Amino acid sequence: MHFELTKDFIAYLKSLIEVQDVEKILECFSDAHPADIADILEQLTNEEANYVFLQFQPSVEASILVELEDEQLDRLLTVIPAEIIATDLIEKMDSDDAADILQTLPERIKTEVLAKMSDKEQASDIADLLDYDEDTAGGLMATELVRVNKNWNVQKCILEIRKQAGEVDNMMNVYVVDDDDVLVGMLPIARLVLAGESAVISDIYDDEVISVPTSMPSEELARLMDKYALLVVPVVDSLNRLKGRVTVDDVVDVIREEAEKDYQMQAGLTQDVDDNDTMLRQTMARLPWLFVGLLGGVLSSRVIGVFEDDIARNASLTLFLPLLAAMGGNVGVQSSSIMVQSIAGGTLKLTSIWMKIFREFLGGLLIGVICSVVLFLYNWLSGNDLQLTSVVSFSLLVIIVFASLFGTFVPLALEKCKIDPAIATGPFVTTTNDIVCCLLYFSIARSLLI
Amino acid sequence: MHFELTKDFIAYLKSLIEVQDVEKILECFSDAHPADIADILEQLTNEEANYVFLQFQPSVEASILVELEDEQLDRLLTVIPAEIIATDLIEKMDSDDAADILQTLPERIKTEVLAKMSDKEQASDIADLLDYDEDTAGGLMATELVRVNKNWNVQKCILEIRKQAGEVDNMMNVYVVDDDDVLVGMLPIARLVLAGESAVISDIYDDEVISVPTSMPSEELARLMDKYALLVVPVVDSLNRLKGRVTVDDVVDVIREEAEKDYQMQAGLTQDVDDNDTMLRQTMARLPWLFVGLLGGVLSSRVIGVFEDDIARNASLTLFLPLLAAMGGNVGVQSSSIMVQSIAGGTLKLTSIWMKIFREFLGGLLIGVICSVVLFLYNWLSGNDLQLTSVVSFSLLVIIVFASLFGTFVPLALEKCKIDPAIATGPFVTTTNDIVCCLLYFSIARSLLI
Repeated sequence: MHFELTKDFIAYLKSLIEVQDVEKILECFSDAHPADIADILEQLTNEEANYVFLQFQPSVEASILVELEDEQLDRLLTVIPAEIIATDLIEKMDSDDAADILQTLPERIKTEVLAKMSDKEQASDIADLLDYDEDTAGGLMATELVRVNKNWNVQKCILEIRKQAGEVDNMMNVYVVDDDDVLVGMLPIARLVLAGESAVISDIYDDEVISVPTSMPSEELARLMDKYALLVVPVVDSLNRLKGRVTVDDVVDVIREEAEKDYQMQAGLTQDVDDNDTMLRQTMARLPWLFVGLLGGVLSSRVIGVFEDDIARNASLTLFLPLLAAMGGNVGVQSSSIMVQSIAGGTLKLTSIWMKIFREFLGGLLIGVICSVVLFLYNWLSGNDLQLTSVVSFSLLVIIVFASLFGTFVPLALEKCKIDPAIATGPFVTTTNDIVCCLLYFSIARSLLI
Repeated sequence: MHFELTKDFIAYLKSLIEVQDVEKILECFSDAHPADIADILEQLTNEEANYVFLQFQPSVEASILVELEDEQLDRLLTVIPAEIIATDLIEKMDSDDAADILQTLPERIKTEVLAKMSDKEQASDIADLLDYDEDTAGGLMATELVRVNKNWNVQKCILEIRKQAGEVDNMMNVYVVDDDDVLVGMLPIARLVLAGESAVISDIYDDEVISVPTSMPSEELARLMDKYALLVVPVVDSLNRLKGRVTVDDVVDVIREEAEKDYQMQAGLTQDVDDNDTMLRQTMARLPWLFVGLLGGVLSSRVIGVFEDDIARNASLTLFLPLLAAMGGNVGVQSSSIMVQSIAGGTLKLTSIWMKIFREFLGGLLIGVICSVVLFLYNWLSGNDLQLTSVVSFSLLVIIVFASLFGTFVPLALEKCKIDPAIATGPFVTTTNDIVCCLLYFSIARSLLI
């Protein structure tokens, strides 16, 4: 049940593929969940993965496809004819999974696959889904659900469920609509079980149902389902007509991707990369922010250039330059991360932006004073030059206060301009801080040490 | 339905509280979901929040409590007598929510509340739940579920559901056990609806059910439910006896908290803090890593001290110090973040640690060469001293390669030692990089420039 992927297993599997021992290969996978099979395929070469994949029954193939990463999916689908994709694979999937997979195909093949599907109603449902923006409730929803008219009785309702039973996974509720297909409520299946066969739906359904429009952005949908602890939510169009339903497992992916995006941003990566990705892909994800850092470093070298004579006269000015730059960077990232998380989590206190800045000023002052005093005591106790010690400690205070304010302000400003505030936690704030830090430190040194 | 929290609304509400206009206050909340009410209470002072809370019906109070943050919860529960907590609030909650809330109370009050509950069976269930570690499947599960014996027929099964109907939310399946209460399978409610009343459970149930042990750590549970797209999973003890069930909404919190923890670590925060927290709490979360940064900065000042004469002779050595330190830090954080995400996401390629290090060496070399060439070209074109330019560019290459290797190695080593690898993305790697960077740069400069 809980499949454990090991190096030995992969080696054994590769040896079976080598000698094309189909029977033993399939034996390896006899108990595996499609999600496990997908994980295993990711560890093989393209040729090996394609070879193994094609040994499965179409229904298993369909469930594996749903679990694959986009790259692997692309590679697999190019070796399978459109007709097979249409009738053996896509038709066996839920509409939302089918749409997701078609989405990854080139336009021409997508159209070909849809045209070759034998279930025209399903093809039309999927084509409709493809029209929604991927990052909205419409793009996430599945059209498989049980809809019943509020004027029906329980018996007719059960007949309808019987008709659609095979199609809908995780059925908890049936959705109640009026004659115009407008969503008016829902009926938990458990209540249906308990009601008499002749009971009329309109007497037993629940008219307080949270629904979302097809256009709702997926992050907002994720927050809503999380907040109200919904396992499934019906999706309606602008006339409130029932179009589909989103289950929370689809939204979990959105929540995780959202968190990962912020994490990558903070780490200075422009794409979702992991250990498994090619070196080229990793390098492309890393270089953009590194160039920003390079530019920032060049600018700070210009700033320091202005003070080169001061340094020549007093080389010990350099001693604490990395300390000041690092502390400025750390404080700035802390401040912006707190803001970004508050914005993302919706826990931003309802005070004005200036109130927040003022509060951060006090917070920065507190942290700055503590750090400066600690640094001063260290320098004083280790018998460093008292004048330099004072300059460095005072600069640290100023830099920390600046970094907190700047780190707080930038995400709030980005949010106001409808730009993702998470950008602020990337190397952008750190780089700016480095430049300003050099400027502040050497200016303070020049005015106090002369 | 979608409640929008505004400053105006809060101001209006505060004015109503001022004049104790209970009727209008309750009117404000007439359509609000308990999760919305909890959000609103968070924006009030303690006295205001307590006052408003006590105006609601006990059943509404119970659902609000479930949604509150721990701090606010503590403040509220201290003003409510144990007996009221027991009979009016705890008894109206699902067992898992009740256990979570009791968990936040002092030991003495917890015992008192449990003793005062009138539903002794529920009290015993909750007491059992309190014995599980909070961060395991046992700590997350609710005991409310419908269990049926595999020898029963559908009619008896429906009677059982009727008995427990009110208690179980989001009912999708009933769980099938044998005479020893051992979980043998599950039965989707939809299938129950379609079967005849005389059908025997053992003929229609599904014996392939993924269950988890009570001891499974919550992060592992979260990964499992996410991977297999489970909305609900049964929890069993070591004899495979059915103990409870976990729904995915509880696990979503785990996923989000996990992601937030990594994010905070990367930002150099030791606790989950947001804009709403007191300045003291924020400062306490920020200082520990800042002290690490301070210590690192002091050590790097010692390293630079060794080279003070070189700097006095050639002040322009300082120009590119911030650039080198920043680039080392950025590259290091990128490398460790990629590793941490791969470890967390389970997408680590099954190769040896040395293979990974070698691969990262090549990757670091590629990035290092690109950045060094760019920096060299800039310096050359802007007519900087060619000798210094060469030293800086070569140092950048060495520092980038070191930072990639170090950033890759540390999380892998931490993981081997069973320490959370996410620590590596915090200021730890950056700080070490700063020190090593100074050492490498000035050593290279001394050997090449003399």
